[in-house]
Amino acid sequence: MTADAGAKAAALADAAVAGDRLALARLLTAVENRSPIAEAALRSLFPMAGRAHLVGITGPPGSGKSTLVAALIAEARRAGRTVAVIAVDPSSPITGGALLGDRVRMQAYADDGDVFIRSMASRGHAGGLAPTSAAAAAVLDAAGFDLILIETVGTGQSEVEVAAAADTTVVVEAPEMGDEVQAIKAGLLEVADVVVVNKGDKPGAQRTASQLRAMLVATAPRDAGASSSGPRPKRPEVLITTAATGDGIPELLAALDRHRGLDRVGESTAARHTRAEAHVWAILAERLRERLHDDAHATATMALLDEVADHRTDPYTAADLLLGALRSDDA
Amino acid sequence: MTADAGAKAAALADAAVAGDRLALARLLTAVENRSPIAEAALRSLFPMAGRAHLVGITGPPGSGKSTLVAALIAEARRAGRTVAVIAVDPSSPITGGALLGDRVRMQAYADDGDVFIRSMASRGHAGGLAPTSAAAAAVLDAAGFDLILIETVGTGQSEVEVAAAADTTVVVEAPEMGDEVQAIKAGLLEVADVVVVNKGDKPGAQRTASQLRAMLVATAPRDAGASSSGPRPKRPEVLITTAATGDGIPELLAALDRHRGLDRVGESTAARHTRAEAHVWAILAERLRERLHDDAHATATMALLDEVADHRTDPYTAADLLLGALRSDDA
Repeated sequence: MTADAGAKAAALADAAVAGDRLALARLLTAVENRSPIAEAALRSLFPMAGRAHLVGITGPPGSGKSTLVAALIAEARRAGRTVAVIAVDPSSPITGGALLGDRVRMQAYADDGDVFIRSMASRGHAGGLAPTSAAAAAVLDAAGFDLILIETVGTGQSEVEVAAAADTTVVVEAPEMGDEVQAIKAGLLEVADVVVVNKGDKPGAQRTASQLRAMLVATAPRDAGASSSGPRPKRPEVLITTAATGDGIPELLAALDRHRGLDRVGESTAARHTRAEAHVWAILAERLRERLHDDAHATATMALLDEVADHRTDPYTAADLLLGALRSDDA
Repeated sequence: MTADAGAKAAALADAAVAGDRLALARLLTAVENRSPIAEAALRSLFPMAGRAHLVGITGPPGSGKSTLVAALIAEARRAGRTVAVIAVDPSSPITGGALLGDRVRMQAYADDGDVFIRSMASRGHAGGLAPTSAAAAAVLDAAGFDLILIETVGTGQSEVEVAAAADTTVVVEAPEMGDEVQAIKAGLLEVADVVVVNKGDKPGAQRTASQLRAMLVATAPRDAGASSSGPRPKRPEVLITTAATGDGIPELLAALDRHRGLDRVGESTAARHTRAEAHVWAILAERLRERLHDDAHATATMALLDEVADHRTDPYTAADLLLGALRSDDA
């Protein structure tokens, strides 16, 4: 990185921490583009992060996640907290512009400096979603937001992992969804700290909540022998909300706080450790990928990949050859 | 790996190639569990793979992907081809057991040795979905299947990437889906070689097809200057099918063949190269991950990750320290 980029990074980071929202937005763009500025800024901001409550919100399309996010923002603001949202969701009104009602709700905060909303593309991140969203969360955390909501659609592996790496993971369901969506549910429950049955004014909300509680009870008890990499320690609470009217939202915010309290006393570091590992690993992988495609290696790398594409070399042999090439540089 | 495991791998691989379906199933289980047997078997099977047509099928929940897969199996069988299916889809009737009708349709092939159906969990793969599905496809390819269909739900990054790494990628839509699903569509079109408007007997199918064609025309022309890593070379065809009745399915199979023909003459290696890169990269990443957690490194790795979790070390510094530790081993 040039000295100029370093100076620019420091200036952006300082301004973002001091409350300059335009600088914050620029820094997040740098993070999303993986510019050298982002790395320099993150190195300096990182020690200031670690105070925010990171809440992942995931669920199938149609469960009303975005309306729930809008309602949580309103509730948190009433409680005097600052809120940032990272929306990694192709069906989000923020990203995709699907639902006019929600978009209007979000625009209510256009002039509120204590609410910051950012959409992130869910595709096209070479190293996956995790590093970009983790870096964006660290920037918002360092910038002093109390509550950071990370919204993802709960049907893809990367998207679920991003939400599940938060301190508290909320899985949003809705009553009486189609069979296909029902099948998606079961996999999602594994990552939940709090389960929300949204659209609680629809028929069947109570029954859906009862079914979910029964499903959660039927799984093995999770409060014994949980290791840092093991399952979540507490059986999740199941709440009913109607995000469109605000019903149940104060109770949801209280449940999030309760989970954070539990998390801090008990298995506090599990989620943070997982998040740190994903973040570090993604950076490490990106460094290696860059080296394999740099001037010294690109030709040999491409030739080897062509051999694999033509089934002349198997991928295990190719991986070992590439590792060998990297090592011989260092010898 | 022990000599015993090596012998077992060779025996399983030989039996799978010779047509033993139980051996094939066991080998795929080994692939999914990433057992040492899988690596040994894949090394020996890999040169025999490369002849099958790999077709990725993706789309939002509710578009009828699984019914379409069932209809494609029937059509390909009528044409005398052997077919294997890898279903990486939490909403698939194969994986999730959601739709009784489709499940019955699939069971029609229980006694047909020329159809092989395998579901794969879409979550819990430490290194991502790509390596497991690529390895499974290579095994089925070596086992001699003509057509390999890889079904994924098109709302998650990993899932879309898995389908998009096939020789031919089919994006399935349905008419008049909800706004949230509409928003998902746009992102999916980027990876399509063939677009299918399924449920063609529903109102609005023709209009949906026209809209999709207009969206595809509106994007930049894709037949000029496409590099091996660039966008797909041809504008995708848009077809209307009614998978439940079989309408349009012969035309779809013909379109898949046409795309493969194009692919073979022109930008033939793009998809294969991408697939090879993802496969090799995933193996390389897994090798590194194992080393960082082996007896020699695990303690230092965990301590460093704890420092990142507590925001005492930034993730870039941690990544560089871990890379340094790996290098010093080799010196």
